[in-house]
Amino acid sequence: MSSKYVYFFGPQETEGDAAMKNTLGGKGANLAEMAKLGMPVPAGFTISTEFCTAYFAEGRQFPQSLRDEVAAAMRKVEAAMGMTFGDPQNPLLLSCRSGARQSMPGMMETVLNVGLSSKTIPGLVKKTGNERFVYDAYRRLIMMYSDVVMEKAEDVEPAEGKGIRLQLEHLMTRAKKNAAKKLGKAAKDVLDTDLTAADLKRLCLNFKKKVQEVLGREFPDDPQEQLWGAIGAVFKSWQGRRAVSYRKIENIPAEWGTACNVQSMVFGNLGETSATGVAFSRNPATGDNKFYGEWLVNAQGEDVVAGIRTPNPLNEETKNPQNKHLPSLQAEWPELYRQLDEIRSKLEHHYKDMQDIEFTIQDGKLYMLQCRNGKRTGTAALNMAMDMLEEGLIDERTAVTRVQPAQLDELLHPIVDAEAEKSTEPFLHGLPAGPGGACGKIVFTSADAVAAARKGEKVILVREETNPEDVEGMRAAEGILTARGGMTSHAALVARGWGKCCIVGAGEAKIEAAAKRMSVGAIKLKEGDLLTLNGTKGCAYQGALKMIDATENPRFQGFMRLVDKFRDMGVRTNADTPEDARVARGFGAEGIGLFRTEHMFYGAGADEPLFLLRKMILSKNVEERKAALDELFPFVKKSMKDTLEAMDGLPVTIRLLDPPLHEFVPQDPKNRSALAKALGISPAQIKKRGEALHETNPMMGHRGVRLGITYPEVTEMQVRAIVEAAAELKKDGRSPKPELMVPVTCDVSELDVTKVVFDKVKKEVEERMGIAVDCLYGTMVEIPRVCLLADRMAKTAQFFSFGTNDLTQMTFGFSRDDVGGFLPDYLEDNVLEADPFQTIDQSGVGQLVEMAVVKGRSTRADLKLGICGEQGGDPASVEFCFRTGLTYVSCSPYRVPIARLAAAQAAIKAKKK
Amino acid sequence: MSSKYVYFFGPQETEGDAAMKNTLGGKGANLAEMAKLGMPVPAGFTISTEFCTAYFAEGRQFPQSLRDEVAAAMRKVEAAMGMTFGDPQNPLLLSCRSGARQSMPGMMETVLNVGLSSKTIPGLVKKTGNERFVYDAYRRLIMMYSDVVMEKAEDVEPAEGKGIRLQLEHLMTRAKKNAAKKLGKAAKDVLDTDLTAADLKRLCLNFKKKVQEVLGREFPDDPQEQLWGAIGAVFKSWQGRRAVSYRKIENIPAEWGTACNVQSMVFGNLGETSATGVAFSRNPATGDNKFYGEWLVNAQGEDVVAGIRTPNPLNEETKNPQNKHLPSLQAEWPELYRQLDEIRSKLEHHYKDMQDIEFTIQDGKLYMLQCRNGKRTGTAALNMAMDMLEEGLIDERTAVTRVQPAQLDELLHPIVDAEAEKSTEPFLHGLPAGPGGACGKIVFTSADAVAAARKGEKVILVREETNPEDVEGMRAAEGILTARGGMTSHAALVARGWGKCCIVGAGEAKIEAAAKRMSVGAIKLKEGDLLTLNGTKGCAYQGALKMIDATENPRFQGFMRLVDKFRDMGVRTNADTPEDARVARGFGAEGIGLFRTEHMFYGAGADEPLFLLRKMILSKNVEERKAALDELFPFVKKSMKDTLEAMDGLPVTIRLLDPPLHEFVPQDPKNRSALAKALGISPAQIKKRGEALHETNPMMGHRGVRLGITYPEVTEMQVRAIVEAAAELKKDGRSPKPELMVPVTCDVSELDVTKVVFDKVKKEVEERMGIAVDCLYGTMVEIPRVCLLADRMAKTAQFFSFGTNDLTQMTFGFSRDDVGGFLPDYLEDNVLEADPFQTIDQSGVGQLVEMAVVKGRSTRADLKLGICGEQGGDPASVEFCFRTGLTYVSCSPYRVPIARLAAAQAAIKAKKK
Repeated sequence: MSSKYVYFFGPQETEGDAAMKNTLGGKGANLAEMAKLGMPVPAGFTISTEFCTAYFAEGRQFPQSLRDEVAAAMRKVEAAMGMTFGDPQNPLLLSCRSGARQSMPGMMETVLNVGLSSKTIPGLVKKTGNERFVYDAYRRLIMMYSDVVMEKAEDVEPAEGKGIRLQLEHLMTRAKKNAAKKLGKAAKDVLDTDLTAADLKRLCLNFKKKVQEVLGREFPDDPQEQLWGAIGAVFKSWQGRRAVSYRKIENIPAEWGTACNVQSMVFGNLGETSATGVAFSRNPATGDNKFYGEWLVNAQGEDVVAGIRTPNPLNEETKNPQNKHLPSLQAEWPELYRQLDEIRSKLEHHYKDMQDIEFTIQDGKLYMLQCRNGKRTGTAALNMAMDMLEEGLIDERTAVTRVQPAQLDELLHPIVDAEAEKSTEPFLHGLPAGPGGACGKIVFTSADAVAAARKGEKVILVREETNPEDVEGMRAAEGILTARGGMTSHAALVARGWGKCCIVGAGEAKIEAAAKRMSVGAIKLKEGDLLTLNGTKGCAYQGALKMIDATENPRFQGFMRLVDKFRDMGVRTNADTPEDARVARGFGAEGIGLFRTEHMFYGAGADEPLFLLRKMILSKNVEERKAALDELFPFVKKSMKDTLEAMDGLPVTIRLLDPPLHEFVPQDPKNRSALAKALGISPAQIKKRGEALHETNPMMGHRGVRLGITYPEVTEMQVRAIVEAAAELKKDGRSPKPELMVPVTCDVSELDVTKVVFDKVKKEVEERMGIAVDCLYGTMVEIPRVCLLADRMAKTAQFFSFGTNDLTQMTFGFSRDDVGGFLPDYLEDNVLEADPFQTIDQSGVGQLVEMAVVKGRSTRADLKLGICGEQGGDPASVEFCFRTGLTYVSCSPYRVPIARLAAAQAAIKAKKK
Repeated sequence: MSSKYVYFFGPQETEGDAAMKNTLGGKGANLAEMAKLGMPVPAGFTISTEFCTAYFAEGRQFPQSLRDEVAAAMRKVEAAMGMTFGDPQNPLLLSCRSGARQSMPGMMETVLNVGLSSKTIPGLVKKTGNERFVYDAYRRLIMMYSDVVMEKAEDVEPAEGKGIRLQLEHLMTRAKKNAAKKLGKAAKDVLDTDLTAADLKRLCLNFKKKVQEVLGREFPDDPQEQLWGAIGAVFKSWQGRRAVSYRKIENIPAEWGTACNVQSMVFGNLGETSATGVAFSRNPATGDNKFYGEWLVNAQGEDVVAGIRTPNPLNEETKNPQNKHLPSLQAEWPELYRQLDEIRSKLEHHYKDMQDIEFTIQDGKLYMLQCRNGKRTGTAALNMAMDMLEEGLIDERTAVTRVQPAQLDELLHPIVDAEAEKSTEPFLHGLPAGPGGACGKIVFTSADAVAAARKGEKVILVREETNPEDVEGMRAAEGILTARGGMTSHAALVARGWGKCCIVGAGEAKIEAAAKRMSVGAIKLKEGDLLTLNGTKGCAYQGALKMIDATENPRFQGFMRLVDKFRDMGVRTNADTPEDARVARGFGAEGIGLFRTEHMFYGAGADEPLFLLRKMILSKNVEERKAALDELFPFVKKSMKDTLEAMDGLPVTIRLLDPPLHEFVPQDPKNRSALAKALGISPAQIKKRGEALHETNPMMGHRGVRLGITYPEVTEMQVRAIVEAAAELKKDGRSPKPELMVPVTCDVSELDVTKVVFDKVKKEVEERMGIAVDCLYGTMVEIPRVCLLADRMAKTAQFFSFGTNDLTQMTFGFSRDDVGGFLPDYLEDNVLEADPFQTIDQSGVGQLVEMAVVKGRSTRADLKLGICGEQGGDPASVEFCFRTGLTYVSCSPYRVPIARLAAAQAAIKAKKK
């Protein structure tokens, strides 16, 4: 192994830069970049992501070459900082932090204060003159190291409640109780800072005894051993349960790996002239162009993020009701604030994006520990993109790429109705950590949230504070409420990443998770009670408040106009009703890609057409069937006409009746009797017909075009309805653009046979009504064979519309109705990387789609190509469709803006290449 | 249109030859060839098959260019024959006959005696001096022409029993009744020849009146109009119902078209020195090298074929009990027989194959009307091939191609046990028209035969005589028995073509089809009664006689040795039991391509393993499941070991448990209760588990490898069984060659995850038993996605076995259990050309197979490739597999010889190219 794995950064010399994110991870690349920009970054080095891959490939070993590289870099760090690692007089302390290409907040491990040992502690005490600080740092090191390195990274599985961290926390609590007695305070009012040097020294001893007792090994006293243990733990945490779970949700490939950043420690907890903080160059929740952040005096970074103490505001103008009584950095230390604000400005102009910053003040001197592009809500992403565009910081193309398509979702989803809010009082206030509104039943654990969501219930996850173990429950919940934590706490970061409504730090709430209840003063709530959150304001209401649409935002409209400048693939919607059609038009749909005829037989108002359909199905011969179809005809025509009218001037793809007929025959005796009575036949006849129609595998049974081959009169009636509806609209001066789509084809003969019916009926209607109607004739592509023979299909079909739901079913041999039996195991065990019904399987199903596109266009150059499966609204699938050369994608109305943005970004990405 | 469509043949000049079969059809090409060989062929011309295609493409019109070509050829015919078409003094009469590339006996139309009209009749009477003959010819022309040209070809659909032919036959019967009075005979004893010239003249007048009355048009009196009408009818009959149905069964493409042969008439019915006959150069039923045929004095060819009069034998040595009292041609007219026998010998040496000959003797002069390769039974095909090889007439390669793979079927199927026959007496004798034995229930109509066969019942079709409308029923029946007809009657020809057991001309049988009963003397039989036929001897028995295998034939063994000389693709069998394995080895199987583990849970002796399997399925947790699996293990191991032993030294592909588990949970309350009692649980628990396992589309549900992903312990048990069984056999000095096959995979991860289990268990067993076992690891290829990703699959899989049943299901989206609802319509309407479950869909599924082969071999050059779907025994599919480069095909034991022959023929065909 002769690869270079270690990259140094420091004030004089820096080997990496921001462009090397893939190698150095986001954190390492930005540390290098900041160092290059001359910002005050403590010296250190990054072990690259490539080593992470090698580490797992080589059985989790450190080769000698790496040890040599680290030793060399360490000498430079020591030179830059003027201290020496492990030196008894002037010891250098180090931090080891993970850093992947893409930020995974709280999902991987960090170890601080590495290098404290029986040999270095006395020297450091002497040098800092602060024994209390040194032992405080030491107890932190022991706690973190024993948990992260000795337990988790070694895959020690402690019994419930027996984890080393928890046991050390018990010792800490006991130490505080002892201190309380001495101080005459209540135990709960004792702060960490109330513990004296002697207390902490004793605590460290007890900690080390407990580690030996619980883990059966001594806490290592050799700085080198500490260092390599910490480095190993950082890399191992890449394959930890939480990280794997987060990667699955975020679609981060395991091959990326993490880097490990080893950096000189600077201390925010060296005393009252030291502090630590995190900040965003703009407000990550709203996008407001105001410097926004939190800090704590005499603290380490983890204290701010962990949400244990409520942090101070960064400046005066961003104070909020929760922290308005606390001192701002601006007021407290104006010169340091000015320096930091200057760095903020420099960074934003350098990176041309909102920055998430970590800083430490050690003995009055500012150090930059981290900067990275900040996570933000969809609202903030959109506002920042438009602001930065107006500020001239970025161009239009960049603005379009600054909002993730999925983030638009939150903008399209409801907020709490302002009128409804006026008429009621919030019962609880907290920090507005994730915007928008949410309403649902209270649950108190992540597992309950997941279980409820599986049942289709909307829930609000209420926690004392969240931790990385809660990510799946947070994902499943409509909204999140925590009693503790600040705007940069775990809950807030994760919720904002997903554009999820979230309130944190609602300290008045007393939460008893085990008992599944909470109280706010006299108000008592239990599991299942309804709760409404306004995440934009940070207040919560009892019961369910009215919610309204959030799309009237002119900023949103402006952004979408910008998006359409860069988009060249069409976006249609799947809509079966005039209402859906109108909603989708409002969202910018350019037509209907899938109108399902059968929709009129489901739901409200479907009684009469459904009855007539059943009558048709139960006909004993062609004559009876034709008579029933004649009765059904006006309903079918009306349904088509209304939707064509709502989409006037835009194409509407109407699919012929698709489901197997037995779906419409009532199964239970009661409904059967009622239908029999109405039709004047016996229930036994209905039962018999139902049984005759029963199929073992209905998905692959008598449906789609197969119905039309057996009962051409059913096709005739539908064609007549389409053509008459269009003819009538045209006579009224409208511009209907129907497209007839034949479903479930597997051979061009099916299209040819059906086209004979289509042509004949169309001609009849046109002659009878004295008006010509344009109607494209095409097919759904949902059976693998059709992709293989697409050249033949395109000889008859004027368009293809990929039905990727069924195509995925048949390409995988997965019945969507039945995958519940094994697909969760497949995803859990990583047998499949993603659910192919969520995002198109590009390697398998994608090959068939590409084949169909190439073959289809080989015989019909102007073949129209669309996709109407549910994946039409999935950004990755939209990008695939763009690359494959599709004419349009079609998706549900609420996903139309997402598809528009995804299509524009795909076009921009393709131009870059 | 400047193509040449018309080809003349005659004594001086002939434009075509036998090589031009595609253009001239079989009959036309052979007439041309015979003419070139100097044989006495009446002059004529052939309108080519290319014109047939043009005719339908151009809307059934005759272009002027064709009319010009025909006129030119006609002048040559007239010159050769010394007569003129339509000439009042010396009129030439013509026949118009169809002739496709491949013979389709009785499926298309013929019109004879074209050219008789009010103008030509007097001249012909004068010239022949035989008024009776002329009017007999005329009444035949009217009957044939009105039926074939005026009714059928014009698609006139007569009411039941109102067809013109039937109505004219009534007139004929009436004329015979009148004659009977005059002759003092019973009406049924009056022969056609008893009618006088005056009777026939009157009959012709009545015929023409009836034609006018029924069809509303006059019978045409213009010879040219007659000629073009007849030519049109011949071409139209290519698209007639019967021809289309026959083509479907025989897989003849519609694009081939038919030629039309227009030839000078010669008359076998000119009086007692005229005759007509058909002959085979060798016996078409047995292959005996004896000149074999039938003839009738004073008759036209149709009289012999129609089976109305029992014909005379050709020579003394081939007389049989039914015709031994009749005069042979050899005895009657020795010189003419000598001439014919010489022609027979010349033709066989020329064509090097058995010839089917039609001849006519007109006034003592022999004319050859047709020769073609004769249809034959499988037995005859095999015997002739081996005889001709021994005679030096053909080489080994040719001998192998002389037997159609499907014909072997009859050689593998049972014959009546000779011992059983000895102990009983036949109740009925007839002509041995199709060899072998058959046993089944009597049915009297084609429709009943088809219906019974669909229900899986074996039936014997009993008919007075068969006609082309009966082909589907004949196909469906085990055997055919007719009361009338000779060895060259319709029934005999068709049955022999299919190698079907058939007895014709069993004149003692009185058949009342409408009443669904028959009698032979005092013996009365009705529909459903059992009947046994010995088609080789021509005798029938009441009840079911014992049947035995016919494969011990040394001729068969010799032929199969020859076959294997040319074969290079392997042939394995699908077998689940040691018995099947042994049968298949006897037929030459070179291993097992599919051993289905689950077979042991079905049928006799399955009670205990099935109980244990159910126990496993109903386990509440992993521990219970493992315990149940341990109990099941010895049964699974024994099943595998027995079959490995039976196939010792040859590979055995063992598929892991494949079906969804709910298939094994009893559905009905009674069985559920019994199982519950045995397992000590409640029936409700069983019901609940059954419901939990229920799937909407089980074909695409939780089955195959998916079971193993969810329950790895089930896979473990099976691997343990395979490896232990093989290890034990190896210790006993055997050479077991197991191959583990993973079913229903869609991704290589499934194979990788399962391989971890495989490797682990294999290693454990090998270490425990102290012996190494070789076992290939591969996958079934039955999901479309696997074909698309075959390069990845082959990185883990050492072999692929195409499961073309499921692959066809998913490629078409056809559920095999449900296609009954629409596939018959698809085949009926020609939406699909063939049932893709019978023969592999080369254009669609075939593309996937080819892709998998190419991609698979790209990552593993020595990948073994096989097919184990049912199509493995279909000759066209075997040829496809050979072309695609598969290592072997696997089929049911009884199809192994068929697959061997098909593979050899495919190799010979490929070498030719």
